[in-house]
Amino acid sequence: MAEPLKVGVAGLGTVGTSVVRLLEDGRDKLIARCGRPIEVVAITARSRAKKRGADLKKYRWVADPLTLARDPSIDVLVEVIGGAGDPAKAAVEAALAAGKPVVTANKALLARHGQKLASLAERRGVALNFEAAVAGGIPVIKTLREGLNGNGFARIYGILNGTCNYILTRMEQDRIGFAECLSEAQRLGYAEADPTFDIEGHDTAQKLSILASLAFGTKLDPDAIYVEGISSITLADLDAAEELGYRVKLLGVAVKTEAGIEQRVHPTMVPKDSAIAQVMGVTNAVTIDAEGLAPITLVGPGAGGMATASAVVADLADIARGVCSAPFGRPAARMTATRKAPMQHHEGGYYIRLLARDRPGTAATIARRLAQQGISLESIVQRHGAAAEKRAPSGRSGEPVPVIMITYATSEDAVRRALSAVRRDRVISGQPQVIRIEKN
Amino acid sequence: MAEPLKVGVAGLGTVGTSVVRLLEDGRDKLIARCGRPIEVVAITARSRAKKRGADLKKYRWVADPLTLARDPSIDVLVEVIGGAGDPAKAAVEAALAAGKPVVTANKALLARHGQKLASLAERRGVALNFEAAVAGGIPVIKTLREGLNGNGFARIYGILNGTCNYILTRMEQDRIGFAECLSEAQRLGYAEADPTFDIEGHDTAQKLSILASLAFGTKLDPDAIYVEGISSITLADLDAAEELGYRVKLLGVAVKTEAGIEQRVHPTMVPKDSAIAQVMGVTNAVTIDAEGLAPITLVGPGAGGMATASAVVADLADIARGVCSAPFGRPAARMTATRKAPMQHHEGGYYIRLLARDRPGTAATIARRLAQQGISLESIVQRHGAAAEKRAPSGRSGEPVPVIMITYATSEDAVRRALSAVRRDRVISGQPQVIRIEKN
Repeated sequence: MAEPLKVGVAGLGTVGTSVVRLLEDGRDKLIARCGRPIEVVAITARSRAKKRGADLKKYRWVADPLTLARDPSIDVLVEVIGGAGDPAKAAVEAALAAGKPVVTANKALLARHGQKLASLAERRGVALNFEAAVAGGIPVIKTLREGLNGNGFARIYGILNGTCNYILTRMEQDRIGFAECLSEAQRLGYAEADPTFDIEGHDTAQKLSILASLAFGTKLDPDAIYVEGISSITLADLDAAEELGYRVKLLGVAVKTEAGIEQRVHPTMVPKDSAIAQVMGVTNAVTIDAEGLAPITLVGPGAGGMATASAVVADLADIARGVCSAPFGRPAARMTATRKAPMQHHEGGYYIRLLARDRPGTAATIARRLAQQGISLESIVQRHGAAAEKRAPSGRSGEPVPVIMITYATSEDAVRRALSAVRRDRVISGQPQVIRIEKN
Repeated sequence: MAEPLKVGVAGLGTVGTSVVRLLEDGRDKLIARCGRPIEVVAITARSRAKKRGADLKKYRWVADPLTLARDPSIDVLVEVIGGAGDPAKAAVEAALAAGKPVVTANKALLARHGQKLASLAERRGVALNFEAAVAGGIPVIKTLREGLNGNGFARIYGILNGTCNYILTRMEQDRIGFAECLSEAQRLGYAEADPTFDIEGHDTAQKLSILASLAFGTKLDPDAIYVEGISSITLADLDAAEELGYRVKLLGVAVKTEAGIEQRVHPTMVPKDSAIAQVMGVTNAVTIDAEGLAPITLVGPGAGGMATASAVVADLADIARGVCSAPFGRPAARMTATRKAPMQHHEGGYYIRLLARDRPGTAATIARRLAQQGISLESIVQRHGAAAEKRAPSGRSGEPVPVIMITYATSEDAVRRALSAVRRDRVISGQPQVIRIEKN
């Protein structure tokens, strides 16, 4: 049998310990599939003393990630420390510089330094694999990198954050408000103590920048992404979506437009019968629209120790078999600068929910402001709801009335201008709610 | 730039011409992704004179597939002729024997001779790639072969035949009977003039045998598969499924049981909220249950020139990059003989629809026969339907009454015995309808 592939694991949280366990338990399967064993030979983490519920004593402990990366006894570094800075960054750079392939689950590092790391890997002729960095157990990196090579891509979008999808699912199915769902997700360990990174869409944006780069051959640019989170979504929005034939999902969307690559993360109305609308709870999903092909949707576990470890081990198996693909599917020198399509040029349908003052002329004013921006309405629903019960004989209660509108395709710019004008007219109370619609 | 990869294409139907076009149109993308061009240098098909709606004059025409396979000017053979026998088989064997990698979309050839061809490819150290053979545009072969390497598989199942799924979708959504849907599918070109191969599940069985071999490391054995088609499915079954929270899909299922690998193709009740139940029309889908992981579902176009060609080109790109995986994910010598789990030992829930004679004691008789086989019922529905309108004052019309039962998990054997006994009791008319339930 060929020599074993000797692995150093940096980071021993849920993912790191799961990788060690999966390499042990799957040893025979991996020999069968790769023709050689894959063996952990050294490990490191911040604290050696921490209880990890796994027998790690048999592995050689190394002082720190950088030392591990440079250790001559390892052939490949698994980096599951996380974070865009050191020690993860220094360790990955050191391993690549020493001509060692790297497997990482670190989306923050890739989103920020992916370009430079890919160039370094390429110069040294070694693999930089990161299937685990996006949508955990779903093989979306491999599919984009190797699965659809002759086709250009038109669009890629997905549910990339399990926390947000869990919250939206729970709100919709059990009619519980956002804040309560978030607390519950925190109790269950689906959301961090500081949930901002997930809830406000930043986690999705990092992952999207990686997918966009693979799909469109552009340089990674997380700052080019328009980002809006789910904290403003209310039960009223979910009810309206249901009635109109949509569901609300936090999507990351990268799409080729005439103006360039549009990258955006925001709550999105998706048709209820689309594959992506069926994705519930912490599950992730990615839809790939390749040019000339019907969409492909991949659905599966987005996080969790085993799902992420499974992706790390698949990446190691490729290395054990001698496969070395360009990290972002093409030579780093061929990756082009992103021509950003600015968000105000985004075109699509919009859901708009306003609280209109219940007095004569309001509807006419709103309609005129939309018309002035060339916006046509597919549907408009005005609900009196509870307020209507006690309304005056005039038919008006004086209380604000929700008005829900679905527009035909228009531009972000037009919607923003129209709503500014409506606000200036003082015919609505509060902020208008705007949710973009993504058709399948 | 490195030398081009020189391709010979055998077979110029929809898929073959699409491959030629995609290699032309995607030339620059492929150079970017593979570091070298992929060029068609020679072609062949049964008739040179046939109109193909593509300009193929610039490619050298070779007399026949075998000559093409042996042609020293080609580096790799694309076989999209189809059929388990010659000329496809002879051409693939000749190319492999000459040390040339082969890309094929030929499920029949692989199901029948995959074992031998994989051994031959391995001996010559060349790739035998067949992403296009199962679920066209969905990268399921790559996912099973490379995407989840450390994990064992517990179950794999899917909608692998677009014709059947189109018919079942149309029946369900538009309340049209099986025969009419089939004629329509034939008119639209979704079904062959002789639809038996699709409708009776044989196409699904060939594809399933390939997936099962990849997932479980067993030798290909299409004869080990229990096969049942969709021609007996009625609107009454679809209505009952709807009411009970299921949809009916033709699934290919391979599952690891204590008795061995169970492989079966049959109409199946799947929970309405499962990912697979959302798959409509000619779309295909595959769900992979890896051990210790939440299920992964891949959904996409299962057939069509572009989808299939896209898979062929992705396989060529792997070859251009020098990737050579074992055809079935492990060395041929490590593939084990399938320990077949016989269908009568299958365990699961069952949907049973009977036409019971409307007379005293019928229900008691049916219930007793099921109980004698240890079968417990999750639900039972008896419908008088139209007949009930005109029933006699006794409450009985004398006409047979549909009885629909859902069982808890039981064995195929028990169900067959119980229904034989019920038939012998002469309390039902016609054949009982039995549809197996697959839980997600």
